[in-house]
Amino acid sequence: MLDKTKRYLVVGLGLLGGKYALELTKAGFHVDGINRSEGHLQYALEHGYIASGKTHDFEDLVSSADHIIFGLYPTALIEWFRTYGHLLKPGCIFTDVSGVKTGLVEPVQAMCPAGVEFIASHPMAGRETSSVEHAAEVNFAPANFIITPTEKNTPEAIQWAKDLAEVLGFHHICTLTVQEHDKMIGYVSQLCHAIAVSLMCANDNSSLCEYTGDSFRDLTRIAHINDKMWAELFLWNKENLISEIDQFDAALQQMRAALVADDRNRLEEMFRLSTQRRAAFDKKLPE
Amino acid sequence: MLDKTKRYLVVGLGLLGGKYALELTKAGFHVDGINRSEGHLQYALEHGYIASGKTHDFEDLVSSADHIIFGLYPTALIEWFRTYGHLLKPGCIFTDVSGVKTGLVEPVQAMCPAGVEFIASHPMAGRETSSVEHAAEVNFAPANFIITPTEKNTPEAIQWAKDLAEVLGFHHICTLTVQEHDKMIGYVSQLCHAIAVSLMCANDNSSLCEYTGDSFRDLTRIAHINDKMWAELFLWNKENLISEIDQFDAALQQMRAALVADDRNRLEEMFRLSTQRRAAFDKKLPE
Repeated sequence: MLDKTKRYLVVGLGLLGGKYALELTKAGFHVDGINRSEGHLQYALEHGYIASGKTHDFEDLVSSADHIIFGLYPTALIEWFRTYGHLLKPGCIFTDVSGVKTGLVEPVQAMCPAGVEFIASHPMAGRETSSVEHAAEVNFAPANFIITPTEKNTPEAIQWAKDLAEVLGFHHICTLTVQEHDKMIGYVSQLCHAIAVSLMCANDNSSLCEYTGDSFRDLTRIAHINDKMWAELFLWNKENLISEIDQFDAALQQMRAALVADDRNRLEEMFRLSTQRRAAFDKKLPE
Repeated sequence: MLDKTKRYLVVGLGLLGGKYALELTKAGFHVDGINRSEGHLQYALEHGYIASGKTHDFEDLVSSADHIIFGLYPTALIEWFRTYGHLLKPGCIFTDVSGVKTGLVEPVQAMCPAGVEFIASHPMAGRETSSVEHAAEVNFAPANFIITPTEKNTPEAIQWAKDLAEVLGFHHICTLTVQEHDKMIGYVSQLCHAIAVSLMCANDNSSLCEYTGDSFRDLTRIAHINDKMWAELFLWNKENLISEIDQFDAALQQMRAALVADDRNRLEEMFRLSTQRRAAFDKKLPE
């Protein structure tokens, strides 16, 4: 159970930061906010997502927080921490929402003042929308919450992250190493987005709109993408993503070669393998 | 309006042939059936999809039919027609359900006896299931019905195909040339299936099941695939499909190159293009 006397601070009131603020406030926690833009800060204040907030001169909010949630892209988080990290008070345990962890967790943990602890986590609840104005639409219940502890983390901080995820409404909470997380994300999320975007970029397909069915619609739904955020996530995880692209491309080239060679058996083999693997997914998928 | 005194014959009582029989019978037409396997023929008889049916010695059914629907794969359709095509009576207008047209329409039209006309069409209502036992689950209302006339076709036959599609419940009926149809299908359907299958074949991903979200699920739903049918469809349209694979792969390789070069601008450009194109689809998609 999370201690309700602790003060929470959300830095970066975007889609996810805003949703964290909303859910924590609804659950009875004291939540303050820091945001660069005045408009979104006002939105969060007016809708009761945060008790108070600032766009600058926020040192007091930082140094009085028991727990901080960083709703920032990795580059912005590291930069923010370089400037203000020394203000965090001893005993402060904080987390982030970033979709990539390598290159982020180690440097931020290394910069932590004595007694301050960073336990990284990733709420896998992406949407095609962004900004605090859509935060209330996010649904955490069916999504995975992944905690990525390192050897620097204490059992207390890991437990805090789990309790936080429960308050936020996640039903699926698990831990992975930083490396496992980024490899997994490279395949199940980033490669899918790379494929959907490439499919849309490959062809000026506007004349084909009226002929598309469910398969095309399903495959390209995620081609509607936040350009700044995904460029950041792709580049921060580029080694894993490039390796996944190459593995996928090898399979696609095998299929192409079977077509060129009129190799019906090889095609049927691939179709049976994919059907069999996909069936296993249908069984194991969480609700 | 279709003439209800005409006799219909469905050759091949699979998922689509079965659905055609069911809908025509419901609408008050006389429908007979021919099927290779006794079991599925019995199912169609017992469920009232057809008035009568045979697995062999069916010459009388063929020569008395005013309209025939071929629910066969292209290879099987051509083979059947070589053997029994001469039995079709003058005035008979018939169609098929095949997902590819090049290589099928011309030879079958060339084999037609005098006074017999083949007007090809494609009901774009694929499912992951097959066989007559699932025919009743197919929903034609949101799907496209594409008629692919050639210079050999008469306005009467094209009108018959349109009227047939209406009786079957299609709301979206249009005509394309054989070449336009197969090129479009190569992109909006076959390339999507090639990608989904390659994505599943690329990686023994069973350990990742629990981490997959909507994007991965959407992208791979169609990786559950009828191996015999899709091998046939892919090979019959291999020139178009290979060309679509190459175009898609070029876009994917552009993205890979941008990752290698840390070219954030290029990535963001691709994301904006895909978002813009996808938005146009959302607007134009039929209900």
